[in-house]
Amino acid sequence: MNNTLQDENDPLSAYRDQFHIPKGVIYLDGNSLGAMVKTAPERVRHAVEQEWANDLISSWNKAGWWELPQSLGAKIAPLVGAATDSVIVTDSTTINLYKALHAALALRPDRNVILAEKDNFPTDLYISEGVMAGRENMQRRLIGERAKGLEEALKDDVAVVLLSHVDYCTGALLDMQAITQKVQAAGAIMVWDLCHSAGVVPMSLDDCNVDFAVGCTYKYLNGGPGSPAFIYANKAHHDYIEQPLTGWWAHAEPFAFKQEFEVGKGLRAFLCGTQGILSMTALDAALDVFKDVNIKAIREKSVALTSLFENLTLEQCHGFGIGVFSEKEATKRGSQISLTHENAYEIMQALIDRGVIGDFRQPNILRFGFSPLYVSFDDVRNAAQILLDILTTGAWQEARFSKRNAVT
Amino acid sequence: MNNTLQDENDPLSAYRDQFHIPKGVIYLDGNSLGAMVKTAPERVRHAVEQEWANDLISSWNKAGWWELPQSLGAKIAPLVGAATDSVIVTDSTTINLYKALHAALALRPDRNVILAEKDNFPTDLYISEGVMAGRENMQRRLIGERAKGLEEALKDDVAVVLLSHVDYCTGALLDMQAITQKVQAAGAIMVWDLCHSAGVVPMSLDDCNVDFAVGCTYKYLNGGPGSPAFIYANKAHHDYIEQPLTGWWAHAEPFAFKQEFEVGKGLRAFLCGTQGILSMTALDAALDVFKDVNIKAIREKSVALTSLFENLTLEQCHGFGIGVFSEKEATKRGSQISLTHENAYEIMQALIDRGVIGDFRQPNILRFGFSPLYVSFDDVRNAAQILLDILTTGAWQEARFSKRNAVT
Repeated sequence: MNNTLQDENDPLSAYRDQFHIPKGVIYLDGNSLGAMVKTAPERVRHAVEQEWANDLISSWNKAGWWELPQSLGAKIAPLVGAATDSVIVTDSTTINLYKALHAALALRPDRNVILAEKDNFPTDLYISEGVMAGRENMQRRLIGERAKGLEEALKDDVAVVLLSHVDYCTGALLDMQAITQKVQAAGAIMVWDLCHSAGVVPMSLDDCNVDFAVGCTYKYLNGGPGSPAFIYANKAHHDYIEQPLTGWWAHAEPFAFKQEFEVGKGLRAFLCGTQGILSMTALDAALDVFKDVNIKAIREKSVALTSLFENLTLEQCHGFGIGVFSEKEATKRGSQISLTHENAYEIMQALIDRGVIGDFRQPNILRFGFSPLYVSFDDVRNAAQILLDILTTGAWQEARFSKRNAVT
Repeated sequence: MNNTLQDENDPLSAYRDQFHIPKGVIYLDGNSLGAMVKTAPERVRHAVEQEWANDLISSWNKAGWWELPQSLGAKIAPLVGAATDSVIVTDSTTINLYKALHAALALRPDRNVILAEKDNFPTDLYISEGVMAGRENMQRRLIGERAKGLEEALKDDVAVVLLSHVDYCTGALLDMQAITQKVQAAGAIMVWDLCHSAGVVPMSLDDCNVDFAVGCTYKYLNGGPGSPAFIYANKAHHDYIEQPLTGWWAHAEPFAFKQEFEVGKGLRAFLCGTQGILSMTALDAALDVFKDVNIKAIREKSVALTSLFENLTLEQCHGFGIGVFSEKEATKRGSQISLTHENAYEIMQALIDRGVIGDFRQPNILRFGFSPLYVSFDDVRNAAQILLDILTTGAWQEARFSKRNAVT
């Protein structure tokens, strides 16, 4: 057996101990909600019992609440290949996409098309509808999955292109550098959604000259349920960010209580209202785990984990109606594998009953995410074996649940 | 002495024990960041260590995360005189104002003026600039403080009127019923900002037939630093809410992953992206304190507290350069008193050094908020005495601090 697929040879294996994984659980849903870092409870407790309860409003300065959007952004920046002051943490992914699309359109007022993938994560499509609805004569042009048809669609009316770096369902990983170049060569602005790649796929937003990017912090960055999103802007745009969610936190002098809005410097232009400090504090604890980790080592293990799971599934589950929906080439996908089965929902419930947590996606998809900092090669082997058991014994036929809900 | 001004005769005095007030502190800044309820640490700990760490994604259903915007809204509803399904908790005040203004404008597409107070809380003005910037031919018309000039300004081009129920600085309390009637009689839509009144001033949004309202939860509702805001819509509008921040959480079928946005029912139309669960959990704990409290009793004590502080200040501090900036009639103001002094900043620092926490507002204002659930009449007497001491001894002349920051 290949040495790289043994936990004892895994250079990242020590990180697993920094996360809380419930006993008996193989957690393959870190692409939906990342596991908790063990330092989070004490950090959040301190924010509640000391910063809030005892220090009260003085914590805005004393505990650095006021600087959290920037300080958290600075911790994410190296993970996405950005200068420290080019990333800021605030609001939700969807709201930040709204800001980024508006900021992009403001840079191309002469053009009127938003180009997006028809199979993009739905909220990206929904918010682009919202952006269009508020502007005259805007249109949206949709291309196929894996950016198929991009070149033909890139006509001279395209103002902005919005694509997911890794597709939430197929896991397809797009070539950030090549696509950004193409888009910019056609005179359009490039906005990347990094929700399913940030923290697990190495990238260099600065080197790829990306215009704007938005990402989630509660998936591979383990910030906790609903932790705020981040937004990136290319240095070239820092002085020209225009977006309509103009709130007090973005003001050049937020405590002068001026009547007119005057935008603050750089990425502060993307801030709006007051942020949930407790959620930001949990994220702060999580990001500290990434301080010394090599994102390339994460990617290497990620590719090995997904390949191992795919191979074991193909070998063992052959003949049980299981198909592979995700991108086949390991180097062209993110850290996830999607399988298909006509009884996917019931099979996923049976897996969860046996401690293997992935998620079900309509209509027939079993989705598994692999967070290299806490998923081991043994986890993958055990998960594949349990899947085989369930298919062999037909145990999934007993799994019946009323709700088909989950949150990506 | 009047019996109503004694803590032993205060029907709300028992509530104080449900809050954590640091030793030696008289906290008169609950209008900026409310004190912590004692149940918050355990509730947040449970959300972190059980719901997130152990139950992981299953908590979206099992722990009710998915229902939090509605369940928190239902707890706020009785405090603002609204039907249970007419209030929802999500995002920040500023972002919710953006949604409310857009929803209002969608109901009056034939009109093009947003009417607001020139001395309104700045973020209300800033976000109305953002709303205007994204629409053709919009204009803003500003009126004086205390809604002075409203009638003359209410021409037939006014689509929406945005006013603060209680002014953040003067504390002036507007007549919600009379103003809403006037605005609607002129064919405009009424949007109230309840940031400085929710939880401390009784109101009936439904009975006053208010169109939309937005409020903060981290001031008098004690939700914790940056806890999410709420938004109200009149039942008549529930089926016609249009706003451009269209995200997955507002979708009629959020887990069907459809490509087209189809808005969910009622107030769900105001949801957008994923919310910070930890911040919502702290708010949930705080709102439980309000379950049995009589909001009219809160108001009665609030009026008594502010009157006592104003009277003691006027009696005792006469001759020291102290003026009263806030609304003079107790029944026409919220739960706050603003004093003026040319050395207001230094005096506030000296007060804070002596444990009396209020806040400074440019250029010369000492602002004090009175949360009736945890501020006592003795607190008020002691605070007034300490202010007198500082003025008498000139102790404020030693107070020198570099930062003039605070967050409302």
